[in-house]
Amino acid sequence: MPKRIAINTGGGDAPGLNAVIYAVVKSAHSRGWEVYGSRSGYRGLLFPEELVRLTPEMVADITPTGGTILGSTNKGNPFSMPVRSVTGEYQNHDVSDEIMKNFTRLGFYCHIAVGGDGSLEIAHRFATEKGMPVIGVPKTIDNDLQATQRTFGFDTAVSTATEALDKLHSTAKSHDRVMVVEVMGRDSGWIALNSGISGCADVILIPEIPFDMAKVCEKIEDNELHKKHYSIVVVAEGAKPQGMEEVLGKTGEVGRAEKILGGIGEWVANEIRRCLEKDTRSLVLGHLQRGGSPTTFDRLLALRFGAAAVRMAEEGIFDHMVALCTPAMKAVPLAEAIQSRKKVPRDSDKLMTAREIGICMGD
Amino acid sequence: MPKRIAINTGGGDAPGLNAVIYAVVKSAHSRGWEVYGSRSGYRGLLFPEELVRLTPEMVADITPTGGTILGSTNKGNPFSMPVRSVTGEYQNHDVSDEIMKNFTRLGFYCHIAVGGDGSLEIAHRFATEKGMPVIGVPKTIDNDLQATQRTFGFDTAVSTATEALDKLHSTAKSHDRVMVVEVMGRDSGWIALNSGISGCADVILIPEIPFDMAKVCEKIEDNELHKKHYSIVVVAEGAKPQGMEEVLGKTGEVGRAEKILGGIGEWVANEIRRCLEKDTRSLVLGHLQRGGSPTTFDRLLALRFGAAAVRMAEEGIFDHMVALCTPAMKAVPLAEAIQSRKKVPRDSDKLMTAREIGICMGD
Amino acid sequence: MPKRIAINTGGGDAPGLNAVIYAVVKSAHSRGWEVYGSRSGYRGLLFPEELVRLTPEMVADITPTGGTILGSTNKGNPFSMPVRSVTGEYQNHDVSDEIMKNFTRLGFYCHIAVGGDGSLEIAHRFATEKGMPVIGVPKTIDNDLQATQRTFGFDTAVSTATEALDKLHSTAKSHDRVMVVEVMGRDSGWIALNSGISGCADVILIPEIPFDMAKVCEKIEDNELHKKHYSIVVVAEGAKPQGMEEVLGKTGEVGRAEKILGGIGEWVANEIRRCLEKDTRSLVLGHLQRGGSPTTFDRLLALRFGAAAVRMAEEGIFDHMVALCTPAMKAVPLAEAIQSRKKVPRDSDKLMTAREIGICMGD
Amino acid sequence: MPKRIAINTGGGDAPGLNAVIYAVVKSAHSRGWEVYGSRSGYRGLLFPEELVRLTPEMVADITPTGGTILGSTNKGNPFSMPVRSVTGEYQNHDVSDEIMKNFTRLGFYCHIAVGGDGSLEIAHRFATEKGMPVIGVPKTIDNDLQATQRTFGFDTAVSTATEALDKLHSTAKSHDRVMVVEVMGRDSGWIALNSGISGCADVILIPEIPFDMAKVCEKIEDNELHKKHYSIVVVAEGAKPQGMEEVLGKTGEVGRAEKILGGIGEWVANEIRRCLEKDTRSLVLGHLQRGGSPTTFDRLLALRFGAAAVRMAEEGIFDHMVALCTPAMKAVPLAEAIQSRKKVPRDSDKLMTAREIGICMGD
Repeated sequence: MPKRIAINTGGGDAPGLNAVIYAVVKSAHSRGWEVYGSRSGYRGLLFPEELVRLTPEMVADITPTGGTILGSTNKGNPFSMPVRSVTGEYQNHDVSDEIMKNFTRLGFYCHIAVGGDGSLEIAHRFATEKGMPVIGVPKTIDNDLQATQRTFGFDTAVSTATEALDKLHSTAKSHDRVMVVEVMGRDSGWIALNSGISGCADVILIPEIPFDMAKVCEKIEDNELHKKHYSIVVVAEGAKPQGMEEVLGKTGEVGRAEKILGGIGEWVANEIRRCLEKDTRSLVLGHLQRGGSPTTFDRLLALRFGAAAVRMAEEGIFDHMVALCTPAMKAVPLAEAIQSRKKVPRDSDKLMTAREIGICMGD
Repeated sequence: MPKRIAINTGGGDAPGLNAVIYAVVKSAHSRGWEVYGSRSGYRGLLFPEELVRLTPEMVADITPTGGTILGSTNKGNPFSMPVRSVTGEYQNHDVSDEIMKNFTRLGFYCHIAVGGDGSLEIAHRFATEKGMPVIGVPKTIDNDLQATQRTFGFDTAVSTATEALDKLHSTAKSHDRVMVVEVMGRDSGWIALNSGISGCADVILIPEIPFDMAKVCEKIEDNELHKKHYSIVVVAEGAKPQGMEEVLGKTGEVGRAEKILGGIGEWVANEIRRCLEKDTRSLVLGHLQRGGSPTTFDRLLALRFGAAAVRMAEEGIFDHMVALCTPAMKAVPLAEAIQSRKKVPRDSDKLMTAREIGICMGD
Repeated sequence: MPKRIAINTGGGDAPGLNAVIYAVVKSAHSRGWEVYGSRSGYRGLLFPEELVRLTPEMVADITPTGGTILGSTNKGNPFSMPVRSVTGEYQNHDVSDEIMKNFTRLGFYCHIAVGGDGSLEIAHRFATEKGMPVIGVPKTIDNDLQATQRTFGFDTAVSTATEALDKLHSTAKSHDRVMVVEVMGRDSGWIALNSGISGCADVILIPEIPFDMAKVCEKIEDNELHKKHYSIVVVAEGAKPQGMEEVLGKTGEVGRAEKILGGIGEWVANEIRRCLEKDTRSLVLGHLQRGGSPTTFDRLLALRFGAAAVRMAEEGIFDHMVALCTPAMKAVPLAEAIQSRKKVPRDSDKLMTAREIGICMGD
Repeated sequence: MPKRIAINTGGGDAPGLNAVIYAVVKSAHSRGWEVYGSRSGYRGLLFPEELVRLTPEMVADITPTGGTILGSTNKGNPFSMPVRSVTGEYQNHDVSDEIMKNFTRLGFYCHIAVGGDGSLEIAHRFATEKGMPVIGVPKTIDNDLQATQRTFGFDTAVSTATEALDKLHSTAKSHDRVMVVEVMGRDSGWIALNSGISGCADVILIPEIPFDMAKVCEKIEDNELHKKHYSIVVVAEGAKPQGMEEVLGKTGEVGRAEKILGGIGEWVANEIRRCLEKDTRSLVLGHLQRGGSPTTFDRLLALRFGAAAVRMAEEGIFDHMVALCTPAMKAVPLAEAIQSRKKVPRDSDKLMTAREIGICMGD
């Protein structure tokens, strides 16, 4: 009897999810195995009639497409799943045993979980608490996982942001304007840093370096002195002005700086307008960065992740995550993979490059 | 002695401005004429030392570029120009006579003004009040001039908006979301209509058709019934809900609805969230639509406009604007061209198409 | 009972075919009608078990895709169809009566044929000889139909060619090379002309203007004199050197010049190498021009064609083709539409523009 | 006195050359140093009046552009330079001493040579034989240098090839065709492998794996059996059929297989036509792969290379090449860097992935 693999995708979407699915289906097929897709997270394993047999024919054309054919990705934690009671209200139930029972009953050999740290943690719990043979595939558009050199989706997001910067250069220049562009990156500045350097920004503000508006304005004025009457400022959504930590502390604010600042891009634009009386516009790229066909780089990486996951399944390496370690793939224990985030370090070569080519990092 | 032409670009930038300049320079060159660029509107004609001789070599590579090499485009009306006095304050002066004097003294044969209705009106005043031989080239990214079938920049703006919609489809679908996208179009809905149809939107809201939120929500719910759990809504920045005119009237508001509504995209998103309790995000494309390399369509149209303007100069047709009348170019009197705007008519074939393929127009 | 429409796509593929299908399905659906797709030309009407009911769900995502979901497009003329006999050999049979019988038996209301002149001629024969209510939708990537201002697919092909020219500029410039690019256009030069102008070519050779290699080489040498050490030459596949007609006549050659010249692009490159001893490379864009996602322009036009075809069906206008007559759609008798081709006329505004901005047209 | 750096670019162009130049100029500027560009290889150092002082203003907009602002890149080896004698004939002269003399006389601190193995070897000779302080920046679009994990230009070339494959899928599918696409890669198959996997090819043929036409045809027939009536074949220009080595040996042929095979893409297409009687077309992507704006990935890498080269200059590390060793940059001795090429190894993870997802590698 052919081995059966289950697969799901969880968390926010990232370009390349479908390429992972494609590679898993094809790699399994070339071994004579079968793959079943669980839509909406673990829902398919909870209600097995909703499981979808994924054949090579079904996935033939999905590699270049955005999103995920396994549908909506944010559907709760099976260890605490909102289930509607007879009275119509939602209550959280632990449905993990039911899922594990179905998994066993249906004769699944292993489960491949494609997701961010939340999804991988759930996978890890299934592995350690329920004994499910799981393999993780890392998905974070922010490229902020320590355990793998790269994650798919990141190159596409950076490309989309850089293309936007390219477009804004010409219009900013024609109008002598400052354009402030807010990009993704709540906790790490990789998207801002990569797109800002590639897209010839004048200023890049990232969560790792609390910024000083005086330095930002100085750079813009310095541009004027050098007859460059426009400036491009890239701001990660999680960037914060210096001193903000104290303000947040004082107000007893647990949550995010956004509550005080509003959108950080618009906040920075307002400050520039206020200080320099210069025509300044802001733009939030938002979901554009998650959408669209994956770049060639992301397609290849996602396909390699998918193929490597099936290879790990064959070798019986479970409770691990696939990771890129150029030029090979390696297996990293899920427990380890989940913990470590990759922030932009002070001695980052990219950061050095940014400063050396004259980009103001806000400090 | 070779004939001399002056050229300037005015108003908001549009992809294709540099292609117009290229064609003017090359077409003039092939006749043995010279072209001088006036940067920052009419500033170059006011301070002739700032005029730039434009040679074929200088413009060789500008056709595919966005923006305008003639620099900042919003620099005031020469019939009422803000000029700094000795005390450092700005006061409006009529510098048109000075400009005309320079124009004559420097032996210019004619002036080509590339611009929107504001700039073309100024050009027309120079023609009628000062006797300047002017030729207009229409520039409106909104394609809302009655006098010409198309204007350059519009195809690029629509393409940028459609690409954004393409990207949002996959992410909206993966998250069962409603995405509301605000595009340009203060007074006319052409960009929203063209990009919304091409980009497979479910709802398109345009200034010409005051919309009913109930109809919008109905469409989104109807999608749900047909197992399409996401929707894309395109809103022109000038779209308004039904009844808004009265509200605006009541409050004695002279200005724009924005003062009441905030950004219309975010307003629509809020209403959807409120009525349907559905995960809804909004996005403002803003200046992305003005930027970037012109599409092939816009390049060709802009180049043809430029060549036609020089042809008109040769034939001595002044105080006219070049206009596309497929497959030829024609000359339209500036007086006539300035007046008539092209709104989306009720019986528009595009509007019919939108409705027939199931798009909700908000009414 | 709901009205039933059949639809097929014939001839070489063009970006936008799927958008036509989408609009037909959705427009029919909004009238309560049903649409059936006949795959592989008329094969579905010959073997009705192969007909596919096209629902809105099935076509939901096809608008941005290239190719045609109705599969292989070159499958013979039903008035003379190659059918395999019992002995295994192919013989031509007239299966048109059988098709018409099925059409009637299955209760079809009308047939929409999307295709080039070959396919439209077949549709016209069905209309006149068999009494089938047919509506034509024009598909020619070359934009060479007199009866409509534009056809879909053309803008995409021109964009692809222009993008290629953009890429070749930088490499040609870095190596002081001549790049010869062969684009589509057997009988008309529209693709070469539009892409050549937009892509800043130095020379454009089209079928309508037999070219003189001496003039081509002169232009390249003139570039050198002006310190432009590279040149870009665009050649339509049907372009021919002057005197070729006589050569073709002399040799009694009925077929194409290709037999003598080989690929015209490579022939031109060889001549340049021979005459100027200049590093020259040639490139054939070929099928790249037919592929890929349709541009926004082509999507919109194709969707409008599809919606207009169903509108014509509702109004009972048969044996006609939809055609663009800006800003509206009109119905043109098929008999008339098939005949007239649109070549580049000597007084074309585009041709004038090309010459005026310094492009050598080979004469 | 500020330190002075010379820079040149050599060999075939690659997208990202201008980004390297930009980063060198800006990084030098931020240290108060000056940069001079030597156009056409070492020509600027031979004829110092042709050296160009590169200021930040001059390079402000070049990062996103293709090609190189330092002009034509293939201009001979200064150790054996073709120089025209008084009689008008070209003879090879060693002009290296003259170059070194100028270098010293003009007070240059170091020379940055951006180039492939040919150019880097020349740089190495200048370092060892003449004592010039040189720093190399690797440029090979094929990504076949062992000493660095990646080279710029490669991602752009792969993206262009993948985009072409995307376009060909739809047209191949619509016509039930086999499309054979020849991509760059004389000695290594990286471009073919990366683009073939990302672009969903059915067959990938690379120089490292001599191929068997029987296996290729088998794969295409297998597709037919699975109702996939079209196939995409990617061939690196240096791929060869099995047994070719012997043939080349027998004929005493020193040169390339091309002399026997013609273009390998067309050769493969002919074989497929012959064996399977299937409609097959071939396409050579050629120089398209070198052209155009660098991808975001290549821009960032090229900018980092440029900044790292200046950092090395500051640290006095000469006769070395910058190299990527994720996530940092390192210095590799030129002597070592030149020698080792990176072919696709038999145990490559990418190769494994290709085979596992069902791609035929021709063996």
